[in-house]
Amino acid sequence: MSSTYGKLFKISTFGESHGLAVGVVIDGCPAGIPFDTNFIQSELDRRKPGQSRITTQRKEADEFQVVSGVFEGKTTGTPIALLVWNGDQRSKDYSHIAQQYRPSHADYTYQAKYGIRDYRGGGRSSARETVARVAAGALAKLILKNLGIEIKAYVSQVGKLKLDKPYQVLNLALAEENAVRCPDPALAQVMFDYIDEARKKGDSIGGVVDCVITGTPVGLGEPVFDKLHAELGKAMLSINAVKGFEYGSGFAGVEMYGSEHNDEFYIENGHVKTKTNHSGGIQGGISNGADIYFRTAFKPVATIMQDQESLDVNGDKVIVSGKGRHDPCVVPRAVPIVEAMAALVVVDFYLRNRASQGLGFETEEKLDF
Amino acid sequence: MSSTYGKLFKISTFGESHGLAVGVVIDGCPAGIPFDTNFIQSELDRRKPGQSRITTQRKEADEFQVVSGVFEGKTTGTPIALLVWNGDQRSKDYSHIAQQYRPSHADYTYQAKYGIRDYRGGGRSSARETVARVAAGALAKLILKNLGIEIKAYVSQVGKLKLDKPYQVLNLALAEENAVRCPDPALAQVMFDYIDEARKKGDSIGGVVDCVITGTPVGLGEPVFDKLHAELGKAMLSINAVKGFEYGSGFAGVEMYGSEHNDEFYIENGHVKTKTNHSGGIQGGISNGADIYFRTAFKPVATIMQDQESLDVNGDKVIVSGKGRHDPCVVPRAVPIVEAMAALVVVDFYLRNRASQGLGFETEEKLDF
Amino acid sequence: MSSTYGKLFKISTFGESHGLAVGVVIDGCPAGIPFDTNFIQSELDRRKPGQSRITTQRKEADEFQVVSGVFEGKTTGTPIALLVWNGDQRSKDYSHIAQQYRPSHADYTYQAKYGIRDYRGGGRSSARETVARVAAGALAKLILKNLGIEIKAYVSQVGKLKLDKPYQVLNLALAEENAVRCPDPALAQVMFDYIDEARKKGDSIGGVVDCVITGTPVGLGEPVFDKLHAELGKAMLSINAVKGFEYGSGFAGVEMYGSEHNDEFYIENGHVKTKTNHSGGIQGGISNGADIYFRTAFKPVATIMQDQESLDVNGDKVIVSGKGRHDPCVVPRAVPIVEAMAALVVVDFYLRNRASQGLGFETEEKLDF
Amino acid sequence: MSSTYGKLFKISTFGESHGLAVGVVIDGCPAGIPFDTNFIQSELDRRKPGQSRITTQRKEADEFQVVSGVFEGKTTGTPIALLVWNGDQRSKDYSHIAQQYRPSHADYTYQAKYGIRDYRGGGRSSARETVARVAAGALAKLILKNLGIEIKAYVSQVGKLKLDKPYQVLNLALAEENAVRCPDPALAQVMFDYIDEARKKGDSIGGVVDCVITGTPVGLGEPVFDKLHAELGKAMLSINAVKGFEYGSGFAGVEMYGSEHNDEFYIENGHVKTKTNHSGGIQGGISNGADIYFRTAFKPVATIMQDQESLDVNGDKVIVSGKGRHDPCVVPRAVPIVEAMAALVVVDFYLRNRASQGLGFETEEKLDF
Repeated sequence: MSSTYGKLFKISTFGESHGLAVGVVIDGCPAGIPFDTNFIQSELDRRKPGQSRITTQRKEADEFQVVSGVFEGKTTGTPIALLVWNGDQRSKDYSHIAQQYRPSHADYTYQAKYGIRDYRGGGRSSARETVARVAAGALAKLILKNLGIEIKAYVSQVGKLKLDKPYQVLNLALAEENAVRCPDPALAQVMFDYIDEARKKGDSIGGVVDCVITGTPVGLGEPVFDKLHAELGKAMLSINAVKGFEYGSGFAGVEMYGSEHNDEFYIENGHVKTKTNHSGGIQGGISNGADIYFRTAFKPVATIMQDQESLDVNGDKVIVSGKGRHDPCVVPRAVPIVEAMAALVVVDFYLRNRASQGLGFETEEKLDF
Repeated sequence: MSSTYGKLFKISTFGESHGLAVGVVIDGCPAGIPFDTNFIQSELDRRKPGQSRITTQRKEADEFQVVSGVFEGKTTGTPIALLVWNGDQRSKDYSHIAQQYRPSHADYTYQAKYGIRDYRGGGRSSARETVARVAAGALAKLILKNLGIEIKAYVSQVGKLKLDKPYQVLNLALAEENAVRCPDPALAQVMFDYIDEARKKGDSIGGVVDCVITGTPVGLGEPVFDKLHAELGKAMLSINAVKGFEYGSGFAGVEMYGSEHNDEFYIENGHVKTKTNHSGGIQGGISNGADIYFRTAFKPVATIMQDQESLDVNGDKVIVSGKGRHDPCVVPRAVPIVEAMAALVVVDFYLRNRASQGLGFETEEKLDF
Repeated sequence: MSSTYGKLFKISTFGESHGLAVGVVIDGCPAGIPFDTNFIQSELDRRKPGQSRITTQRKEADEFQVVSGVFEGKTTGTPIALLVWNGDQRSKDYSHIAQQYRPSHADYTYQAKYGIRDYRGGGRSSARETVARVAAGALAKLILKNLGIEIKAYVSQVGKLKLDKPYQVLNLALAEENAVRCPDPALAQVMFDYIDEARKKGDSIGGVVDCVITGTPVGLGEPVFDKLHAELGKAMLSINAVKGFEYGSGFAGVEMYGSEHNDEFYIENGHVKTKTNHSGGIQGGISNGADIYFRTAFKPVATIMQDQESLDVNGDKVIVSGKGRHDPCVVPRAVPIVEAMAALVVVDFYLRNRASQGLGFETEEKLDF
Repeated sequence: MSSTYGKLFKISTFGESHGLAVGVVIDGCPAGIPFDTNFIQSELDRRKPGQSRITTQRKEADEFQVVSGVFEGKTTGTPIALLVWNGDQRSKDYSHIAQQYRPSHADYTYQAKYGIRDYRGGGRSSARETVARVAAGALAKLILKNLGIEIKAYVSQVGKLKLDKPYQVLNLALAEENAVRCPDPALAQVMFDYIDEARKKGDSIGGVVDCVITGTPVGLGEPVFDKLHAELGKAMLSINAVKGFEYGSGFAGVEMYGSEHNDEFYIENGHVKTKTNHSGGIQGGISNGADIYFRTAFKPVATIMQDQESLDVNGDKVIVSGKGRHDPCVVPRAVPIVEAMAALVVVDFYLRNRASQGLGFETEEKLDF
């Protein structure tokens, strides 16, 4: 198990889908941050189930409790423990899951690795764990906002429906105004219907979440292994149902020539800029001050309301019959999770960068003109 | 800086492109491994410059020296330091790079982050650092081979030229028989010509490397953050010029319905198998015993033999004129690097898995039938 | 802040003295451990305040709640979160501490480091945090017990009163039968009176806790930095009020000649033994199978019921007048804390050791005859 | 194995006593530090064998080579690899050690843990490894010197001969003027003769090294586990032959009452001070700006020139007869090692502290008046 993430701004999450609670301990949060409870709750609300008919109907208030680390409205530099108690546990009848391996779920691998599993609602492998990430990420966002760094994710693809416009021409604020979280309102409606249709068939469908980070200073990222995009990639790939990650030109960049792909430098108002941004704001693993953008692919969620062949724990053939509640498409609720993980990555690199700079050895002027 | 990778099988790389040497310290290698010098050297040879006219003509023997940790032909459990001395340093004239920021290189970001940079051949940001990874990865491969785990990478795309066949129908051994490392000999020739043409134009082109891992036991990977694919993703994204990573169905899986995408379980000769493998051998972040496969996208390398606009260190406009040696397409030499990083990831998870299993508490029979 | 400890069996503690709760998340506990609630509670009871009149009279039931990671009575391999809710918070009136720096407390350093502090009862710097360590340590003990490893600590000194007998001639079980936790009943009574006298004077006094670990296999400890005794030392020094640590011959060994101090090997029933054990069971940082023993020095606790000169937060002179509840001597309650930290160290090394052994490369017979 | 130390200023040491070289990779050194080769060499010279007749007569120039991370006389922020090639390897005849377990050496435990050992001169367990620590520590000292932090160690005890004066009344500079490194010249001569007598008898004797750190800012140390003194303790205990560690009042503080031991605060020239310093400059695990001082106990080294009973690798009784070269008392050469490890601890905490401070949330004035 490794439920700890981050080097300086370190989080440890815990909790099972149908256990008592899901929670997080944040160790390494700087002191003195005004702890904006409303903002953190609003982020949890964006991830909450039951937001529309295309999300799971599980009932959860997802209100969080602060157990430690905050005093008189500010962080104290000590570990911050946050708890979200599970309301709708419905743990009455899991005998069917207890004995079966649901296809493309983690039932089999958990059983094989640990010899035991909390089968109630997927236990630890459930995406309910991401409540803890969103809570911690909200705190990270509060710090970044103060530094002028903003993170905005949105849905750019559902099944075969693609938003074929670069983020620069979109009004990203519109994403929060529809249930799909796609910033193109017309396409959002088409996507909604598409997801709803999948839902009615008891099926599920995949999607892509794009994310843009603006306002980062030059210098975030720690080569050679902890390159900024490498850590962003790990963070995204650690989210349930993620199958791929690309940043900047990504997989499409493969088809370009170097002479097309290279981002030439120029100067604007005394700041170093690039004419294009195929680099996605990251060069050599270090932020160059341009917008950082990346895309994360989510598979169709494994829970479907259809019969599937599988095995039981004795190795006998069984029919897994879909019942219960599920998200027919995970990307609308994944948007705040992507943002939260991005915020955790960026704040950690920000702190790491501070550690080694400005020690008083610099004799030359600052680089940025 | 973070030049350390791995939790139990931990490597620390060091060295600049045109410094004295590039090297690695491996801390945590189990004792008693027969240290197969020839095999390690053969892996370095696969990465070596100058293998054909479509790779850089830099002259390097890339022979390695064992400084510590090996005694009487075996690893001793103590840190293993390996050095590759740089032969062809050619550090005579770098005055042009010293004063310029080459487009899409790390010159600017290193300068901004550190206030100083070893500009000779890109210094630490050069892919020459991967010599150290290949050396360490070769040792990891030796351990894995003994466990029946094999890792095989190959080139599946160069520019727009795609190998549109699944790995299962390919003879992957053929990849090593041509300069491109594509297992389809006919396509390999087309790709070669394509790269050579780019070379003649002084340009570069991107590519994709696919990788297949066979023979992994069930249970590798540590949820929730150190999922097996998340760590593989980070490892690949940490390689120079990488822009994207996907595993199993990847980005294409987004367009599938759950009912198509789910991998149904069945039993074969007492082993749990899946009918399809969209999961890429990983479920819930843990290997399920099926083949693991993933794809890594490489951009066209930034060094081109053409004039480009840029800035010098004073912020004045300059023309960066290409000279020197370069790889017009990085993927042929990236194949052993991808394999090396994959080996480092897998061996680390293998050791982590061993730590917590078989402590004597198991009362039930083994899971695999 | 760094409230995380351990490499594979990793704990994160949280909580302030007078906050809602104190707790711990254990990440990396192997699966399948029978979770013995009664035993864990009994360990917490040994640390609990109010056990006799020579311990603080704070009223705390110190009952713990399992939030995650345990299912059907066993650990599942997922993070185990344990909470102890604070009952007797008495946070009504801390205005005096809020404005003052109590001598030899952490008020000043916390304020200087973090710019803010939870002054209620010392906040995070209170030894109440060790509740979390004892809970986690109890789980570690359960694992070790199954491996035949036992850890036993006891009080060997209070002020100038010393138990001048080696542990081998003592019946350590007697330690739990008196309030001081000294295994010599007569001396225990003298120590009790001595502490009680200090208490009546509103003063405090220091002490020493000895600890013996039996049944460890040969091979625990990871040179060169994570030597077994180095990690034990760090663990002990991280406990509140600790001022020194020594193992084996310790500071007294300085005065011996090598010819006296060296532990000669001999063989007994096919096992390698040493005639003496000045090494304290550890050679080169690795356990040699003999008993491990070490001593930990605790200062007189800083809270006393007497007037002391000090400064307030404005830098003005103040009289800090003792009030409230305190432990006149910390060692009786420190005994289970020392054991808990020792258990956490040993279980972590045990898991680390397993990771790298038995990979199938061994060709020679086992070493132990 | 764990040959990596430090969280942000991280070192990885490697090399065996009679292998090709001993070295270190420093990952995380800030950029721009003027790399003072002479100073680093002078520190290595203080540790070098053969300084007088009371140190081992092994012949080593101990000159170091910079392999990476330094450019144009400054650190670049990339990993710094330093090598010290072993000159006097004398590996001709080790057949006697190869087959025997020397008493109180690490021969047996290494063999048992790893199943193999480089027996030449103790291999990895030899204190020759500390060359690497002194080199890295010298770089750390360069950084600290620039911050006004100085570290000074000296010998305070050899066998039963004790320097019974507090450091405040000593002229610590005198320590470097005699072979024992005791700042009391008269006592140093007595100690010298005492060690020399032990040497003539083919025996060895223990000693204590005291260390004082001046000029540290308030705020270094990371509670609750990485308390400043806990990390100093671990660092010291990781040095070969160390048996104990105490800071401030240490073991003697046990016998004091709280009313004597507490350090009352007062103000002097606008700075917070304490009237006494039993705390050793550390309160709650955090530096309070006063001098930090601690003591480290070294056992008599295990190598003696006398016959001892032991076992060979087959479990048969043998006589281990002393031959070769040894240090009759390790403390004179341990002085620079203690300083180096202290420097590594302090610089790491300094960087960690910087990471989380001054983020712009502070609204109140600075604490120090």
